[in-house]
Amino acid sequence: MPDINRRWVLAERPRGVVGREHFEWREEPVPSIGDGEFLIRNQWLSCDAAQRSWMSIDTYIPRIPLGEVMASASVGVVVESKHPSFSVGDLVSGAFGWQDFAVSDGSAFGGLVAPLKLPPGVDPATALSLFGITGLTAYFGLLDVGNPEAGDTVVVSAAAGAVGAIVCQIAKLKGCRVIGIAGGDRKCAWLRDEVGVDEAVDYKADDFPARLRAACPGGVDVFFDNVGGQVLDAVLANLASGARIALCGAVAGYSDPGAQDGIRNLTNLVLQRGTMRGFLIFDYFGRVGEAVGELAGWAGEGKINDHIDVVEGLENAPDALRRLFTGQNFGKQLVRITGPADEIAPG
Amino acid sequence: MPDINRRWVLAERPRGVVGREHFEWREEPVPSIGDGEFLIRNQWLSCDAAQRSWMSIDTYIPRIPLGEVMASASVGVVVESKHPSFSVGDLVSGAFGWQDFAVSDGSAFGGLVAPLKLPPGVDPATALSLFGITGLTAYFGLLDVGNPEAGDTVVVSAAAGAVGAIVCQIAKLKGCRVIGIAGGDRKCAWLRDEVGVDEAVDYKADDFPARLRAACPGGVDVFFDNVGGQVLDAVLANLASGARIALCGAVAGYSDPGAQDGIRNLTNLVLQRGTMRGFLIFDYFGRVGEAVGELAGWAGEGKINDHIDVVEGLENAPDALRRLFTGQNFGKQLVRITGPADEIAPG
Repeated sequence: MPDINRRWVLAERPRGVVGREHFEWREEPVPSIGDGEFLIRNQWLSCDAAQRSWMSIDTYIPRIPLGEVMASASVGVVVESKHPSFSVGDLVSGAFGWQDFAVSDGSAFGGLVAPLKLPPGVDPATALSLFGITGLTAYFGLLDVGNPEAGDTVVVSAAAGAVGAIVCQIAKLKGCRVIGIAGGDRKCAWLRDEVGVDEAVDYKADDFPARLRAACPGGVDVFFDNVGGQVLDAVLANLASGARIALCGAVAGYSDPGAQDGIRNLTNLVLQRGTMRGFLIFDYFGRVGEAVGELAGWAGEGKINDHIDVVEGLENAPDALRRLFTGQNFGKQLVRITGPADEIAPG
Repeated sequence: MPDINRRWVLAERPRGVVGREHFEWREEPVPSIGDGEFLIRNQWLSCDAAQRSWMSIDTYIPRIPLGEVMASASVGVVVESKHPSFSVGDLVSGAFGWQDFAVSDGSAFGGLVAPLKLPPGVDPATALSLFGITGLTAYFGLLDVGNPEAGDTVVVSAAAGAVGAIVCQIAKLKGCRVIGIAGGDRKCAWLRDEVGVDEAVDYKADDFPARLRAACPGGVDVFFDNVGGQVLDAVLANLASGARIALCGAVAGYSDPGAQDGIRNLTNLVLQRGTMRGFLIFDYFGRVGEAVGELAGWAGEGKINDHIDVVEGLENAPDALRRLFTGQNFGKQLVRITGPADEIAPG
C-alpha cells in the first residue's frame, strides 16, 4: 500500500468555465478503516456536466463544501475490508471522488449513490458509461420522457456527448429519423460516421436555425435536450404538433447563466400542444434492471456502441472535466487513474 | 332591417399594443342571403388575447388578411334564414367578426368555430364567458393539464383576466391554496375580495419575485400561465417537486416578443422534475358537455361567479380589445353592440 492519498479538493466556486484554478491538489495519508468499513482504490472517474452544478449550487445534493474532495462517479477496487459484504478484489462503482483512496461503510457518499458491487468481468469504463448513469439517463430520458414512435423525427443536442451519443443510437434502434446537434465540422462528421445519425447540424454555424429547419421539414416530434439556451430556442421554433421535449440538462447555462436567456419561442409549446418535461435519473433507479438488460442485449448484438474518451491521470481530472464545457470530448469523458497507487495495487 | 353593415376591417398589422389605428371603419350594405344561408345580427363580441396573434401571425388559423373583417367570437340572433336548421329568433354563438351582420351557411368562419344554436334563456354574456371558450379553457387547462390535488398550491397569472378568474375559482373548489398574480393594488384587492383567492401578488411591484416566494413557502405545485416572460420565470424559480405548468398563452409576448426573453430558470424543470405543457382548447371540444355540465352546476349553486366587463358599442371594439393588453379589464371583456341595428331588430 502506498502511504499517500492524492486528492483534488474544491478550492473556489467557479463563475465561468471550470478549470484547474478551482481546485487544490493535496497529498494526505491513506485513511485507515474501522469495523464495518472498506477501503477503495479508485481506478476510473466519470466526468459529468452535473459536477459543474455541484460545485456552485444546491441541487438534489447540497453543493460541495470548500476544502472537501471533488465529488465524482467512479469505479474502483476494494483493497482492504472489515465489511461483511465487500471483499478485497471486488470491483465497485460509486461516488468516490477525485482521490486515490476512499473509505466506505457501504452508504452513499455525499448524498449520491451507494457503492455497488459490479459483476466479475465487467469493463469499468462501460460500467460508468453505457451501463451507468450515462446510459440510464439516455435510456429513460428518451424512451420514458420523450416517448418516440417509429418514424418520428428525434433531435438530440450535445449529441456528441456521452448521453447524446447513446440517445442517438437508441432512437435509431426505435426506427426514428435522428438529427444530432453538435459544435463544429469534426463532431458533425463523427456523429454521421461513428454514431450513425441521419443528419448532423452544427450549432456554431451562423445559419444554425435555418440548417436545423432544413433538417426537420416535418417538424420535431421529440427533442432530447442537454443544452438549453439558444439551441433549445431554435428547436422550439420547429416543433411538430404534440412534440415532447425531454429536458435532461442545460449545459449552456452551467458555466454562463446568461446563456439561458433568449428563450422566446415557448409560445410554440401552446400552438403545437407541446410538452416539456424535466427528469432526474434517480427517479428511475427502481427500473435499472430493465434498462441495463436491454442495453446489454443491444451491445451484445453490436447494435449500440459505447464511445469512450479517456484522459490519463488523476492529476489531469480538472482538465478532463473542463473538456465537457469547451466541447472537446467525443462521447463519454473518463479519467483513468494511474501513478503511485498503480505501482503497488493488487490486480 | 337597416341597410348598413358597420364593420371594422384589419388595416395594419400591429407591432406593439393593438389599438384603433390598426383598423378601418367601414359602412357597407347589409349582405343578402342565398339558399342554405342565414343572416346573423351580432349582439355581443368576445375580446380574447388570441385575437392579437390572429392579426399578426399564422397560428392554428392563417392570420387575418388585410382588408378583411376583424375576427372575433360573438353571439348574435338570426334575423333572416333560408337554412333548414336555423330559424329567425335563434340565439347563436360563433365567430361572426367585428360587424353588425354576418352571413353563414352553418360552417366555421375563418377556420374558427361553426355557429352553435344556444338553448333558450341562456345569457349571451355567459355563453361567451363561463360557458364559452373562456370557461372551457379554464376548466380543461387547470383540471386536465394542471391536474391539481386538494392541498396543492396553485398559482395563476393574469388571474384578474377572463380565464384566470375562473381558474382561481375552480382551483378553490378543488381544495387548493390559490395565489393570483395580477398588476396593481386594485386588481389584487379585487382578486381577494371578489374572486376569493388566498393571496394576490402584484407583478408590477419591484420585489415581485420575493413576494411570490413568500406567498408560496412550499413551492408551486400547479401554475396556470397566461403571461409567459418574467412572470413565468419567477414561478419557475419556485417550483415544488413534480410541478405542472399549464401554458395557456403568453400575453406578455403578443405585443412585445422581446418580453418573452429572460427565461433563465428552465433548468428548474429538471431539478424539480417539472412538466410544462401547452394546450389548445380545440383539442377538448369532444368533452364540452362534461365541462359545461360541471360549470353550470357550480354556477347554479352560487359556487362560481362569472365576472363580466362590458364596453358599449361596436365603434369601441378596438379600445375594448386594447384593454386586455393595458391591464384594464376585470374578468371577461365583452363588447355589447348597440346602435343603428338595435332600432329595428327583432326581440
